Amino acid sequence: MSNQNIYDNQEFFDGYKKLRSNPASANVIVEKPALFSLAPDLRGKSVLDLGCGYGENCVRFLELGARKVMGLDISAKMLEVARKENSSPNIQYVNKSMTDLNEITETFDVVFSSLAVHYIEDFDKLVKDVYDHLNLGGYFIFSQEHPLTTALLTDNYWTRNTDNEYIHYNLTTYSIEGERKTNWIVNGVIKYHRTFSSIVNTLSDTGFIIEKMLEPSPGNDIMEQYPAYKRYIHKPDFLLVKARKNASHSAGYRG
Amino acid sequence: MSNQNIYDNQEFFDGYKKLRSNPASANVIVEKPALFSLAPDLRGKSVLDLGCGYGENCVRFLELGARKVMGLDISAKMLEVARKENSSPNIQYVNKSMTDLNEITETFDVVFSSLAVHYIEDFDKLVKDVYDHLNLGGYFIFSQEHPLTTALLTDNYWTRNTDNEYIHYNLTTYSIEGERKTNWIVNGVIKYHRTFSSIVNTLSDTGFIIEKMLEPSPGNDIMEQYPAYKRYIHKPDFLLVKARKNASHSAGYRG
Repeated sequence: MSNQNIYDNQEFFDGYKKLRSNPASANVIVEKPALFSLAPDLRGKSVLDLGCGYGENCVRFLELGARKVMGLDISAKMLEVARKENSSPNIQYVNKSMTDLNEITETFDVVFSSLAVHYIEDFDKLVKDVYDHLNLGGYFIFSQEHPLTTALLTDNYWTRNTDNEYIHYNLTTYSIEGERKTNWIVNGVIKYHRTFSSIVNTLSDTGFIIEKMLEPSPGNDIMEQYPAYKRYIHKPDFLLVKARKNASHSAGYRG
Repeated sequence: MSNQNIYDNQEFFDGYKKLRSNPASANVIVEKPALFSLAPDLRGKSVLDLGCGYGENCVRFLELGARKVMGLDISAKMLEVARKENSSPNIQYVNKSMTDLNEITETFDVVFSSLAVHYIEDFDKLVKDVYDHLNLGGYFIFSQEHPLTTALLTDNYWTRNTDNEYIHYNLTTYSIEGERKTNWIVNGVIKYHRTFSSIVNTLSDTGFIIEKMLEPSPGNDIMEQYPAYKRYIHKPDFLLVKARKNASHSAGYRG
């Protein structure tokens, strides 16, 4: 199930499109600003976007000066929208799972991935594949569901009071990695839980240097405007990583 | 309060001594094996132990081949025990807070710290001081209370069923860093919460390369023998870090 294609399920696709069009969604308010805050100077750079979806980020990379962008997505339906709404001569959309990254022969200066890697079962292989597709000194920048979110075996996330305020997050099974079934838009979406340290170690063991990690929260103004965001006080929704392909690693420096 | 000295409080000292003498304590079963699993080859190396307490680890470093060991502790009472029970011509015990590390002029090959850094308010300064006291290529290896443990503002850690089994961990205020008062052996022990990403970023920004992180759990046999350890399924107690002083950093390599 490492290359499940929920996005070509019509019910999921419709629900997802509606969710993403909400200007107060966590993607828009929290995840996207955090992801772009990690971007290096993209001027003249080649960029690969893993799980590019509608291609919104691909267009943004061009606007930030990227020379060319390849957007990879497992979903033909998503890429259909991308080609219609976010096309450019400098963007190439490729209908391929990131688990088949080895079939791409090019290398890139920066590899991005927004909220997709938690669908991938074999993270070790993915990280190795990304490493192999980066030029020396290049960056792997990704966001994923926070390990505290992927940890749970059920959707019983929160304990609330009678006013529906968040009292605490019901954390379970954090230490047990592996498959999780969740009901998100449709029932039975499969994702994979990995602990924080496990993510760090996979990156480090592959040769990446972890430069920055983020567990972003929205500001107080947002929490006042949309009280549901007060949950971030207790538990962030996203984890973001900026890791660099260590130039000196390949030169045999690292012990 | 960054150099609080709870260990010289007689009531705390007595309670702590009793706790540490329990062969089934989490220190013995979980933390210590994990800490030593991160140790590089210590033969011929100079070692600094921050918050060395009774000096048990100092002796173990010598047994593993360390050439000399300095044990630093804020508590005169702890060092009294250390000098009595764990003395050696190759161990120097120094009664000093790790917040005054800048007063030490020597440098070391490896700096260890076991379950002490969460008492330190200014983690940035500590990490910089450790960096300055490491030789090039040297390691900073430490354990601390897990961020999921330090997160809470109260001691209301667990939701249990009527059989006293752990149902979930009551996670609160993870995203709010800073001071926490906890009741551990005595009331009002002060510690400092930092998120996982914040710990990573402080190390990375200082120039350390994070090679490994651990969130260890005891094995199933231990969980069967001591059912309280089943809590680790939901939430680990410790976070451990192995970070290296990047030799090439000082040579101006890092961007």
